[in-house]
Amino acid sequence: MSRKVIELFYDVVSPYSWLGFEVLCRYRNVWNMELKLRPAFLGGVMQESGNKPPAMVPNKGLYMVQDLNRLASFMNIPLRHPSDPFEVMFQKGSLSAMRFLTAVAEKEKDGDRWVENVSREVWMRIWSRDEDICEPASLSEAGLKAGLSPSDVEEILAMAKSQPIKDKLKQTTKEAIKYDAFGFPLIVCHVDGKPKVFFGSDRFELMAYCIGEMWLGPQPDKRTSNL
Amino acid sequence: MSRKVIELFYDVVSPYSWLGFEVLCRYRNVWNMELKLRPAFLGGVMQESGNKPPAMVPNKGLYMVQDLNRLASFMNIPLRHPSDPFEVMFQKGSLSAMRFLTAVAEKEKDGDRWVENVSREVWMRIWSRDEDICEPASLSEAGLKAGLSPSDVEEILAMAKSQPIKDKLKQTTKEAIKYDAFGFPLIVCHVDGKPKVFFGSDRFELMAYCIGEMWLGPQPDKRTSNL
Repeated sequence: MSRKVIELFYDVVSPYSWLGFEVLCRYRNVWNMELKLRPAFLGGVMQESGNKPPAMVPNKGLYMVQDLNRLASFMNIPLRHPSDPFEVMFQKGSLSAMRFLTAVAEKEKDGDRWVENVSREVWMRIWSRDEDICEPASLSEAGLKAGLSPSDVEEILAMAKSQPIKDKLKQTTKEAIKYDAFGFPLIVCHVDGKPKVFFGSDRFELMAYCIGEMWLGPQPDKRTSNL
Repeated sequence: MSRKVIELFYDVVSPYSWLGFEVLCRYRNVWNMELKLRPAFLGGVMQESGNKPPAMVPNKGLYMVQDLNRLASFMNIPLRHPSDPFEVMFQKGSLSAMRFLTAVAEKEKDGDRWVENVSREVWMRIWSRDEDICEPASLSEAGLKAGLSPSDVEEILAMAKSQPIKDKLKQTTKEAIKYDAFGFPLIVCHVDGKPKVFFGSDRFELMAYCIGEMWLGPQPDKRTSNL
């Protein structure tokens, strides 16, 4: 059996992306797969696809709050809603954070442990502790917490403002759009040379069935959900 | 442990409702629950909530086709797409079918086995064999296939045109809207006197966690997905 490549396109502004990110990271060593983290820009995908944020329908917004709370509890992810979700998601947004993560990915040549750790720290800020993710100082703090050195963080902050990194983020976003993305997370499983595309954080059981792996619940190390 | 009551609000125009319906019917005797089938009118819910059909975003429509195909295979439900989904869903619609099912529910005093069987036969028409569900002859055929007698079917067809049945369907739809519905299926679990509301057919594992039951995959009699 050849190793499957699973790409995760995500944006830290999206709380469902965080759930999908943590579950896939937990399955790195459970499924026969190589996980590729692909930080991208959700704003570009929404514009390109003509999709609207779900919370624009008031009842959907209400539902999402309780849905996320229940999923976070079930999946054991410390997600908490920001006090002003509208400001956080639509006014401040995630462009500088996603450029920062793109620069982390660019600097990290082998694997993506840095990308994983920094993404998690940024999510902890925006979707757990209601902290800013727009200012350089905020991103710097996330980088340091993730274990980067001060000089690496300085370099990454500078890179994040450069044209090549801006272009790289656009490029990754375009790749997601090529898979007909209309939101994040978008998970692309490459099995036998064919991509199988899944949207959202609620198709893991189906995904396991489609790629010939075993679903052991969102906490595979505990297997609490199935045993 | 007191028996949980689980209400399923659904409309036969909705293919995801069919998936949710079959899974819950399979769990009737697996979970400690009483399932209550609540045929309602999706058109009313969409209008009231200001929600738009997902297929209005082209990439979402493309995705739904493959998502439904994969889910149907995984869940072992013979779902096939109609040749003209737009006509079937938005032009012909389901109003007469849902009035018919409301009349079946009204005539069936004890339990809802008739409602279950007739709903399934109507879904087989619209979402498996690409057959009409608007004409009285179509609904009559579904009723007979489901095991109703010709005289019962006649009576139900007549009832379906009456004001009390039209009002009953509106009433059930309003009940769904009271739970902040923005689409179907809407699943309301009554546990310890408090309703827990779930939207869609992709929250069963979470639902099991929230109501203290065990998720054994979409085919609990086979347990193929987890064992």
